[in-house]
Amino acid sequence: MEHRASGWMWYPGDLELYHALRQNFSRVERGKGWPAYWKSSGFRQRVAFWRTYTLEAETQLRVLAHGTGFVRLIEERANWHIDEISRQHERKEYKYAFGETITCGPGNVTIVIHVGRIEAMPSAYVEGDVICSDEGWTADDYNEPQPAAGSRYFRDPGQDPAEWPYAEEQIPPAGSREVEGGTLYCWPEEMTAQLKIEAPADRLAQMTVYPGESEDEALDPEHCYLRWKPDAATGLCPRCAVRYVFIPGDPVQVTAVSQFVEYPERASFSCDDPLLNRIWEVSERTFRLCSGIFFIDGIKRDQWIWSGDAYQSIFVNRYLLADPEIETRTLTALRGSDPMYSHINTIMDYSLFWILSVMEHDHSAGDPGYLTFIYPKMRSLMDFCEQRTDENGFLTARERDWVYIDWAELDKEGPIAGEQMLYAAAWDAMSAAAGKLGREEEAAAYAEKAAALRQKIRRYYWSEERGAYIDSYVSGRNYVSRQTNILAIRTGCADAAQQGRILRGVLHDPEIPAIRTPYFQFYALDALGTLGELDTVLSTIRSYWGGMLERGAVTFWEEFDPTVTGTSQYDMYGDRFGKSLCHAWAASPVYLLARYFVGLETVREEKLRCVLRPQLQYFGKLDVTLPVGMDGASAELHWDGEELRVRCSGAEGTLYVFGRETALRDGAEAVLRDQALQPEGFVV
Amino acid sequence: MEHRASGWMWYPGDLELYHALRQNFSRVERGKGWPAYWKSSGFRQRVAFWRTYTLEAETQLRVLAHGTGFVRLIEERANWHIDEISRQHERKEYKYAFGETITCGPGNVTIVIHVGRIEAMPSAYVEGDVICSDEGWTADDYNEPQPAAGSRYFRDPGQDPAEWPYAEEQIPPAGSREVEGGTLYCWPEEMTAQLKIEAPADRLAQMTVYPGESEDEALDPEHCYLRWKPDAATGLCPRCAVRYVFIPGDPVQVTAVSQFVEYPERASFSCDDPLLNRIWEVSERTFRLCSGIFFIDGIKRDQWIWSGDAYQSIFVNRYLLADPEIETRTLTALRGSDPMYSHINTIMDYSLFWILSVMEHDHSAGDPGYLTFIYPKMRSLMDFCEQRTDENGFLTARERDWVYIDWAELDKEGPIAGEQMLYAAAWDAMSAAAGKLGREEEAAAYAEKAAALRQKIRRYYWSEERGAYIDSYVSGRNYVSRQTNILAIRTGCADAAQQGRILRGVLHDPEIPAIRTPYFQFYALDALGTLGELDTVLSTIRSYWGGMLERGAVTFWEEFDPTVTGTSQYDMYGDRFGKSLCHAWAASPVYLLARYFVGLETVREEKLRCVLRPQLQYFGKLDVTLPVGMDGASAELHWDGEELRVRCSGAEGTLYVFGRETALRDGAEAVLRDQALQPEGFVV
Repeated sequence: MEHRASGWMWYPGDLELYHALRQNFSRVERGKGWPAYWKSSGFRQRVAFWRTYTLEAETQLRVLAHGTGFVRLIEERANWHIDEISRQHERKEYKYAFGETITCGPGNVTIVIHVGRIEAMPSAYVEGDVICSDEGWTADDYNEPQPAAGSRYFRDPGQDPAEWPYAEEQIPPAGSREVEGGTLYCWPEEMTAQLKIEAPADRLAQMTVYPGESEDEALDPEHCYLRWKPDAATGLCPRCAVRYVFIPGDPVQVTAVSQFVEYPERASFSCDDPLLNRIWEVSERTFRLCSGIFFIDGIKRDQWIWSGDAYQSIFVNRYLLADPEIETRTLTALRGSDPMYSHINTIMDYSLFWILSVMEHDHSAGDPGYLTFIYPKMRSLMDFCEQRTDENGFLTARERDWVYIDWAELDKEGPIAGEQMLYAAAWDAMSAAAGKLGREEEAAAYAEKAAALRQKIRRYYWSEERGAYIDSYVSGRNYVSRQTNILAIRTGCADAAQQGRILRGVLHDPEIPAIRTPYFQFYALDALGTLGELDTVLSTIRSYWGGMLERGAVTFWEEFDPTVTGTSQYDMYGDRFGKSLCHAWAASPVYLLARYFVGLETVREEKLRCVLRPQLQYFGKLDVTLPVGMDGASAELHWDGEELRVRCSGAEGTLYVFGRETALRDGAEAVLRDQALQPEGFVV
Repeated sequence: MEHRASGWMWYPGDLELYHALRQNFSRVERGKGWPAYWKSSGFRQRVAFWRTYTLEAETQLRVLAHGTGFVRLIEERANWHIDEISRQHERKEYKYAFGETITCGPGNVTIVIHVGRIEAMPSAYVEGDVICSDEGWTADDYNEPQPAAGSRYFRDPGQDPAEWPYAEEQIPPAGSREVEGGTLYCWPEEMTAQLKIEAPADRLAQMTVYPGESEDEALDPEHCYLRWKPDAATGLCPRCAVRYVFIPGDPVQVTAVSQFVEYPERASFSCDDPLLNRIWEVSERTFRLCSGIFFIDGIKRDQWIWSGDAYQSIFVNRYLLADPEIETRTLTALRGSDPMYSHINTIMDYSLFWILSVMEHDHSAGDPGYLTFIYPKMRSLMDFCEQRTDENGFLTARERDWVYIDWAELDKEGPIAGEQMLYAAAWDAMSAAAGKLGREEEAAAYAEKAAALRQKIRRYYWSEERGAYIDSYVSGRNYVSRQTNILAIRTGCADAAQQGRILRGVLHDPEIPAIRTPYFQFYALDALGTLGELDTVLSTIRSYWGGMLERGAVTFWEEFDPTVTGTSQYDMYGDRFGKSLCHAWAASPVYLLARYFVGLETVREEKLRCVLRPQLQYFGKLDVTLPVGMDGASAELHWDGEELRVRCSGAEGTLYVFGRETALRDGAEAVLRDQALQPEGFVV
């Protein structure tokens, strides 16, 4: 039979919860598994799928499933023999095994698919001309029936949604050299790959393989983070981060089987500054490697899904891959099931960043369906937070809560300012979410909470004397950190006057300890960007990320302190090669360049619009394509130093450049010159 | 090294939740899986175990685990070199892989074992002279740390608690005969077994095997409930109920590999009435087959864990196996995780029977540890119920709630009497539980709820005119059922006067539809037993269970209607062989005979006591051993028609016989005669 477009279906959330368990349990350190240390939500082991059809004619279908179960068919057929006038219906039930051909109709037909699976997520697939697993099925976990979920990645009846279909590429090493009683193999780029080693079984059985993110790491068998015994039958090692590999003994043939989720090219950036081009390129590479099924932190370590990290990835994704599904998969996985027992990733700030992330996703993707789905979980998260507030309404850490903010010296005594600022921003986000869903009363109530909290934050944490927000009012130390004041700007807690004082007294004060993580560089530079401090933003991008390039980085790092050199630059958490050299939170130059220098912002009014404020003063030449929204629209910009050509495709917009405003029509190219008398115009 | 008594450990509840999934997903009907149709609680996928030791000397240990993870060792050692006076401690952390030998001490040592496992329950095992996985470890699921759980079934380091170590016995068929183009094999007793078939691979590949509970079933390939394709490599069929097996084609060699959980003999019953002896024997056989890891309903069907069925099994277990662990495993599995989304097994009465079951278990086993563990879940279940009450405080059915009570015609309109009566009894049980845990205020509050509810029940459901409780006050039908009035007696809703009227006007009224299920026969006969109607109880046991024996029963049935004969006696749920012929709820004669005719009751005062009221008027001869409590105590009774000898071992008690009271000392034999002048006395 010919089939309509069917796909595997499951209970919404199960794909994310199941693969998140696998993702978060995949970390290995020197042969020791290290499953993520937080409450992990399991998937549902027992689900049912159903749908009712009114069939004009007899039809056939076949149900496939992963799990134990059966298909129940309920037919209601007008039985004209009984009573032609009152049109009695005859109801019959039948049971079928998975894989059996089922013939049914005409009349009303309900199909119920029962599936139970313990070891992995249950799923079902329906093939048929008329009845098939396209949109419209209900999934039920015997608690809350919801529209069944599916994904474009699982359309093939031979698949199992519990196995992600990674794209693969076989990549031989670019070079090798014999060294220290063995061979060092190297690839020009880091990747997530399975190493495949061709050697006799007895050699494989004795072999240990040392993949490293740096040459130093691969050549240090004692401290190398990863080490594998290849499978004796296949020569394959587990999936891991690969750039260098050291194998003791005689040389063997090694191939890296790179495995990745394919996200099409949606953005490009090229200017007359090779350093910025390289920074964009390495940021993109870093980001793509850390964008698998989910946004993860790093590919060597932790390979875990962290909420604050994912929050930043959403900003980069907006300007790079523009893939909405990796965002919803990540957000759903992070949030887990209700009830909430602990903060996301155990981190208080990460719970709050999750709320902010949902609204950033909504802004990127314009996704009311996801907002409707996730809103109850936003509310239960905020309920959870409210149960942890003190008499001032400040969010406080309970036993086992981690107050993170940044890898930095902060004064964390009592309720700290950064958390309250994020908490206020989270109430704003709740208000926005409620508003979008037409829940006006809730929206107003949440906005009030945000306002009241901000007022208290200003009262307790603003030091007029220091011209800055202090970390803690409890400790009496009046400690001023860059991080807290950056968050004050980011979360709208600092008013215009305070922003000015913070800029002068904190951000531009070299006495205040510098940011050491790319993670907080993002917030720092984003704050400076919003304050129009573009010179500082650009010079920091060039020096900080450029600094990593000078050290030979091919992907950007978890932490970078320009004052540290040699092998100790790979040291972190007291572990010689503990630092991740491919870390998603270091990919923010993509966002910073696109947002502040190409100057692209999207606006969601009745429809998607883009606003472009290119800062051409920084470029002699600039060729950029960026996604607008996540439905395939894009903005293209070409600047040769004299003429600027801009085209929006799939969206309209407004261009602010050369001191004036130009409307951008969908598909039309705007051509502009600065101070020129020459005719300008639109070329379709 | 020599090891102390180690065992596998896991997070409490995980063994039950995991194996309950397997149990409830094991049902197969004519080749189609039929996983239980209710919300199934998953096990925890991520746990940690920890314990701190103060070591006098260096020691060694080794950690085994099922799952991915590692061992963290934190050593604090007095460092006399630093400062001999203030005795500074040096703290060091180390990580080890599972299986590695760890050397540690002297000093304070904390071992933390991290385990993640997706497909089955995670567990750990510690071997060592000093440090081992005996009692004292904490298990943590990153929500609620609790004492780690273990079981005497999992002491061997080679085991995986996810695989239950069933006892096995190879049993060849007792006979076979060629019939209808194949061979029928039969065994004298029904059992749960894997059939093992010896035949060439090509024959196995084409073979279908039909196991039946009756000859009729095995010989009816179309309607036979079970059918298997043996594994082509091993010749093994899945575990199922086996008594008869039909295999089409030439004869082959068949063995039944019986699989069971071994529960030692604790009880015996022999009297001068062969029918009663056989009823006891078949009840015991039935009960043992349905007592695996959990109390299940039946071994062919459903193989599920049902709460109402388990409630009755607790009464039989008290007098037969006296195994406390099958009770706690069953109760923990049934209750699942919090929050509660639906009634246990979806059945309102089964939620309430679960509460009653906990207190029956507590009475049997005297188990304050379990009560402490389960009490929060008793409370959350009752909270769940309270959310489903109407303006009268009556428990009402919401969408998807099943009001079961019995397979019988009942008037189920609106809130029905039986549910309210059980609800009142559940509040009593809550009050008793709270009282035992020293929560006096809660105990009083619950007792008040019970009293208030009973008053309302009497007001709304007692019909003075009918002298009976009606099923529903909403329908206006004033329908009187045997079931509702039996529950009125059982739950203490009927006062003494009402009990008398019910006895005459309902229980002894042949116009009121008879009970058709052994399930409700238990409640009926237990009610009659408490009212002293022992003649009726005994004659019903003889006629109803004796009736099944007359039909050739070797185990007792799910349903029995003496008026139905032939193949249709195996019919149920519109399915020709749908009826289970080995059903736990049919094993109650063990309880009824032990409780009312041997007359044994246990009393838990400061210590366990037994009260014996043997009804010797029914026996010319009686030799009985029964467990008292669940710690190995027993009562033995021998009556030869003239002399009665009674001995309690492990408990004291009181004997009421021949119109007088006799104290029973632990281990001493009391010898008594009726109306005799001969000396009586104790023989130690």
